[in-house]
Amino acid sequence: MIYDEIGYEVADAIATITLNRPERLNAFTLEMAHQLIAAFDEADADDSVRVVIVTGAGRGFCAGADLERGASTFDKDAHGDVEGFGEVDGVPRDAGGAVSLRIAASRKIVIGAFNGPAVGVGVTMTLPMDIRIAAETAKFGFVFARRGIVPEAASTWFLPRIVGISRAVEWVATGRVFDAAEALAGGLVSRVVPPDELIPVARSIAREIADNTSAVSVAVSRQLLWGMLGSPTPWDAHREDSRALLRLGAGPDAMEGVLAFLQKRPADFPGRVSTDYPPDVPPFPGRP
Amino acid sequence: MIYDEIGYEVADAIATITLNRPERLNAFTLEMAHQLIAAFDEADADDSVRVVIVTGAGRGFCAGADLERGASTFDKDAHGDVEGFGEVDGVPRDAGGAVSLRIAASRKIVIGAFNGPAVGVGVTMTLPMDIRIAAETAKFGFVFARRGIVPEAASTWFLPRIVGISRAVEWVATGRVFDAAEALAGGLVSRVVPPDELIPVARSIAREIADNTSAVSVAVSRQLLWGMLGSPTPWDAHREDSRALLRLGAGPDAMEGVLAFLQKRPADFPGRVSTDYPPDVPPFPGRP
Amino acid sequence: MIYDEIGYEVADAIATITLNRPERLNAFTLEMAHQLIAAFDEADADDSVRVVIVTGAGRGFCAGADLERGASTFDKDAHGDVEGFGEVDGVPRDAGGAVSLRIAASRKIVIGAFNGPAVGVGVTMTLPMDIRIAAETAKFGFVFARRGIVPEAASTWFLPRIVGISRAVEWVATGRVFDAAEALAGGLVSRVVPPDELIPVARSIAREIADNTSAVSVAVSRQLLWGMLGSPTPWDAHREDSRALLRLGAGPDAMEGVLAFLQKRPADFPGRVSTDYPPDVPPFPGRP
Repeated sequence: MIYDEIGYEVADAIATITLNRPERLNAFTLEMAHQLIAAFDEADADDSVRVVIVTGAGRGFCAGADLERGASTFDKDAHGDVEGFGEVDGVPRDAGGAVSLRIAASRKIVIGAFNGPAVGVGVTMTLPMDIRIAAETAKFGFVFARRGIVPEAASTWFLPRIVGISRAVEWVATGRVFDAAEALAGGLVSRVVPPDELIPVARSIAREIADNTSAVSVAVSRQLLWGMLGSPTPWDAHREDSRALLRLGAGPDAMEGVLAFLQKRPADFPGRVSTDYPPDVPPFPGRP
Repeated sequence: MIYDEIGYEVADAIATITLNRPERLNAFTLEMAHQLIAAFDEADADDSVRVVIVTGAGRGFCAGADLERGASTFDKDAHGDVEGFGEVDGVPRDAGGAVSLRIAASRKIVIGAFNGPAVGVGVTMTLPMDIRIAAETAKFGFVFARRGIVPEAASTWFLPRIVGISRAVEWVATGRVFDAAEALAGGLVSRVVPPDELIPVARSIAREIADNTSAVSVAVSRQLLWGMLGSPTPWDAHREDSRALLRLGAGPDAMEGVLAFLQKRPADFPGRVSTDYPPDVPPFPGRP
Repeated sequence: MIYDEIGYEVADAIATITLNRPERLNAFTLEMAHQLIAAFDEADADDSVRVVIVTGAGRGFCAGADLERGASTFDKDAHGDVEGFGEVDGVPRDAGGAVSLRIAASRKIVIGAFNGPAVGVGVTMTLPMDIRIAAETAKFGFVFARRGIVPEAASTWFLPRIVGISRAVEWVATGRVFDAAEALAGGLVSRVVPPDELIPVARSIAREIADNTSAVSVAVSRQLLWGMLGSPTPWDAHREDSRALLRLGAGPDAMEGVLAFLQKRPADFPGRVSTDYPPDVPPFPGRP
């Protein structure tokens, strides 16, 4: 796939995806959605990638759905079945949801780095990312009710789990655009930094992961942590972590991890996600 | 229904429900429960209402269950089946739970404005409200274990989702009465204001919603956000928001919302909850 | 059972469990796991115990799994089936999970008091405790990915529910060791105090519970609050609290609780967990 609406670069164990329609504040298109999904596929298949950073080119992060089609923008009948993301229970899949569920299934840690405004799908598609940080100049808005539609990208599931139900309803019901300080207070982002420190801080978190941990351990842990959010009882976690420990505990990464610790030296984990990810870890997000 | 234990007034798109037994600090009675349910039915059926504010008359918000029946207050056998809220799986329904589940099902945004002490059912019935704000003079107490009973009004489901499990257990296990600052630190309320600013602040939040958003969008969003709290996978949200987008995206509110945005003017949404609420949105709270 | 890797003392309604291998920073062993489970059984069966405090002897709380077996520490095949905790769905149960699920099922409130470093299973086994407080000298680390394994003790279920999914993934993916201030900011602990105030503060919380509340009320409330975290709808809570109110509301603790309140005197609750705990409260954590 040719990436012309996003950038995709890999360096030093970090894949950087850059939303790249700066003349439109990186407004979201169906083509961008397909390219994002392809980029996450590529990052997952590339063992040299440990962490994915997502940011925007130019002044904005993502201005939401591109409204160039005007009043009928959200009318699928007016535009034919142009999305191409298949169906869920007989309903054409929302493109934002196709992206966010692909991000949820990532085997690499995903960091969202908000360099500027993130509105509508520009913020909802980032909710399955693991860590979100913002430049002081970032702004956010769950503006759907101001456009006569509803929050999408599966955000009605993710948002209350991240910021709490009261904050989620207030942001969605008012549809207001708010600043980075309010995002931080609400737990939507975990750090707010000056604009020129945004990418360095994102990379520093990525480095802490890449330099110290087993890629297989992190991939399995990410799936279990997100997946158990939907589980009725900790016995599900007990079964899955007992199973994963049985397998990983006898594997080469555990041998190396313990030895390196006892020898007070950095670990050099041999495991690779492409070949050593256990096949019996339940996939998140599970389709009902 | 005649409202003599509550007040119910509608003005400027806001319904204000006032718990109105000030001589008893608005202590909760079965009659009050029936009137509250009727008032929420009325607000939902009235398209001129966009937001419901609940507050108390006089010095208190709600002192909890009225204890005028003394030691046998909580003994249903001693008083006959006086509640009249039906059964759940063969058990007479708790009156507080009948109220809180009715509030959970609201199609309008609900703001709790604590003007004074809220204790027992006086606080648990407010947990399904979307936004809670408090006067500096408010106090709170989950005092059930000090009376030999348990938290009710379905609060064992709502409370940990709002304030976290550790805070929930600490407040319930100690049964202590605490002030507005502790409520704010714990996330039980989102704002603490001087007493004379309480209703103005509540109305200002209500105005931000009523003046800017589609009533249908907000009603559907509210149901999905609360409902997805209980869902095991974001695919449920993906299915439901894809379905809602398909319907609302082709509707008059979306046309108006996008046009108004592009024309940089306030939107005037034609949709009405009474007639345009999509029939296929899954109802929250779903009865198992 | 002889307690030689832990201490167990009961005084003034408080059972204190002390992890007691100070020469190894109280590193976790299979024997310690069996003793912890036995101690929680003893506390639950003893009506004189209202609250359990768990702390560590010496400088540390718990340094995690004892690594004295070296590189093969986590290889169950290398050591035979030495754990003795049975199976979950055909998989040998992780020892840390056996402990944490036993703590989750406690009928007494459990307070974790971190006197020093708590790493690996040293922190994950504390997640089902109700309240966690830390000395300023405490440190924490979810270091599993640095050892080539995954978080255990059912922590993939508990951790995101306590600190939020973003913080949970960040702590697990980096595996970093962090201080008490970061634990407080993330909600892992609710108070940080000078070291010599740690046990006094824990006891003061325990006293507030023991001196003011019904033991049966607290035991039922604890089970329902934790249990409803996994429930899809508040109707489950409505059914269970209606049932519990019906039973407890007609019981002696409710009579005494209301009378004492009306007479403005301390309550003296006659109920005992060993004999008066309602048999129909659904057990948490339920095995699927």
